[in-house]
Amino acid sequence: MLTKQQLPTPTLLLDLDKFETNLVRMAARIKSSGKALRPHAKAHKCVEIARRQIASGAIGVCVATVWEAELMASAGIPGLLLTSPIADPLKMRRIVATGAMVVVDHFQQVAWYDQAAVEAGRKVDVLVDLDVGDHRTGAATPEDAAEIAEAVDQAANLELRGLQAYSVRGSHAGGPDERKRVSAEAFGIASRAIGIMLRRGLSTEIVSGGSTGTWKIDTAVPDLTELQAGSYGFMDLAYRREGLDFEHALTILATVVSANHAGFVTVDAGFKAFATDRGYGPEAVGLSGSVYRWGGDEFGYLDVASGSPKLGSRIEFIPPHCDPTVNLYDFIYACRGDSVEAVWPLKKRTSDILQN
Amino acid sequence: MLTKQQLPTPTLLLDLDKFETNLVRMAARIKSSGKALRPHAKAHKCVEIARRQIASGAIGVCVATVWEAELMASAGIPGLLLTSPIADPLKMRRIVATGAMVVVDHFQQVAWYDQAAVEAGRKVDVLVDLDVGDHRTGAATPEDAAEIAEAVDQAANLELRGLQAYSVRGSHAGGPDERKRVSAEAFGIASRAIGIMLRRGLSTEIVSGGSTGTWKIDTAVPDLTELQAGSYGFMDLAYRREGLDFEHALTILATVVSANHAGFVTVDAGFKAFATDRGYGPEAVGLSGSVYRWGGDEFGYLDVASGSPKLGSRIEFIPPHCDPTVNLYDFIYACRGDSVEAVWPLKKRTSDILQN
Repeated sequence: MLTKQQLPTPTLLLDLDKFETNLVRMAARIKSSGKALRPHAKAHKCVEIARRQIASGAIGVCVATVWEAELMASAGIPGLLLTSPIADPLKMRRIVATGAMVVVDHFQQVAWYDQAAVEAGRKVDVLVDLDVGDHRTGAATPEDAAEIAEAVDQAANLELRGLQAYSVRGSHAGGPDERKRVSAEAFGIASRAIGIMLRRGLSTEIVSGGSTGTWKIDTAVPDLTELQAGSYGFMDLAYRREGLDFEHALTILATVVSANHAGFVTVDAGFKAFATDRGYGPEAVGLSGSVYRWGGDEFGYLDVASGSPKLGSRIEFIPPHCDPTVNLYDFIYACRGDSVEAVWPLKKRTSDILQN
Repeated sequence: MLTKQQLPTPTLLLDLDKFETNLVRMAARIKSSGKALRPHAKAHKCVEIARRQIASGAIGVCVATVWEAELMASAGIPGLLLTSPIADPLKMRRIVATGAMVVVDHFQQVAWYDQAAVEAGRKVDVLVDLDVGDHRTGAATPEDAAEIAEAVDQAANLELRGLQAYSVRGSHAGGPDERKRVSAEAFGIASRAIGIMLRRGLSTEIVSGGSTGTWKIDTAVPDLTELQAGSYGFMDLAYRREGLDFEHALTILATVVSANHAGFVTVDAGFKAFATDRGYGPEAVGLSGSVYRWGGDEFGYLDVASGSPKLGSRIEFIPPHCDPTVNLYDFIYACRGDSVEAVWPLKKRTSDILQN
């Protein structure tokens, strides 16, 4: 039986007991709220995890890239939604081939998708992406969203299904009260768009949004029909700082590779082992009072008040931000206690290959 | 003929003309200095690039991980040096199998490597890793380094070849004067270690260190025998801020995927497309006055004073930090002007697979 202690480091570990607890907890909330869950697979890019999310009641998975959609479609994962607007006719052909629902925030995208749908000889389900205050993607106003929805509705090969109203800021707004305020503001904007669309007889059957950060808030919003939460299965330090209490199922195992000083050791996990976008570093499990400092591409320091770990010791770390950390790895070791139960491939691909 | 404009984004581009200019420039400096070049392959993890470095005069390549050594060894790249101390007997067996030279900074590693060498039935070349002021890895003092060197020299299956004296701080110390000062300090420490080792009759045949940041400084240091520079082939914003003037051969191609506001557009390249460890974002090529802002895992914003790029436009970006950015991709498109001349695989692997 393979155990965690035998794995080459740095490596990514999933504690299955904690992961399953997180899945069950989210599923119960979703069920009692009467909403649907379409968890975001950009967090994991892992077919095995998507299968377990579907088994626990999810209606499908969200994806952020065409590649993720292709991966999930080829594995037979149902109910795909590409949450990112794209602007490349070649990519549009590929996403249409997967059967995924897509979003648009511009008339040009409506025309491109309609063309791609004709070429593929199939109808494409479409949500209008609404900017609910982040100004990242989405139609700029509820009125603009309704105009674009009208265009989708009139496009011969597109099927208008409703609205995407995702709040980027809502997910990590800085504590529960602020998340509640931002979410209320976001759904106020969404409500206006829904009102206009309903008066024009346009479908608002699906209203998709919400994150792990607002899982309790958004599941109480009447307008929302489905939640896009993704991080709840893994959890990370950023969400703990927001007061979320899902279990830390995701850790990174590292090894002490240099121990020549009092007060700190050097581990084999740096910028290539943990995503650095939150600024702060990971947290060592079971070494209270220790502090991680970045040490370069392949190194980090762990300051320890007393009892320095020895050369060769293994240390588990909770990552600052789960999604881009998982994106650094090719495999995740699914563990039950110390035993490795399975090795699941993570099919990340930032760049698609296109041969000459 | 495939052109850059057809590639799915975000994706990694190498401008071959600029890359070759950088290689030629470094090779000329190395030749005139009488030193050797063993460029660091952790920057690229790409066999095709390593081959071109060897062809331009490098004596081998440095690697930071066992996986990189295995990749390069299997492709027949000569002269491998694993620059990271490791502390895992299983990994030591693997690195010994590649024939790479290794470093040690602790007596325990000497014993482990000696054992791994016996088991493999081959001699292993070893450098003692010296801490030249960074306190990241390395023997803490020149005296300690000499003691460890003595132990290597006496180990039946190890061959002492000299010293590693790499200055982490030296590479990005904050301008040429400060890099010069830090480098002088680092080589002062190395000189003391070399003196002690020579007096004890220990080999100091190889003294390896130096980075792209100190390529002109360290190639004038008498004690140094070989340079480990890695980033000079690609270049990045961090090195430009240090005043380095290699050509920006490495860029990331992105697409404008949302354009609903005056003053900025949203591109499809965020935390998963650019390494974030420098804090600051990438720089758009040919859009002077534009400023990139991080927008999440898959998004970034580009503030533009006037003439906003249209939905679907392609924008090239220079990354803040080349090594961990390249680490996010599976392929690099080697381009001559707008034409894609080749697609080279980047065999990054943070986590090694070990099946049950």
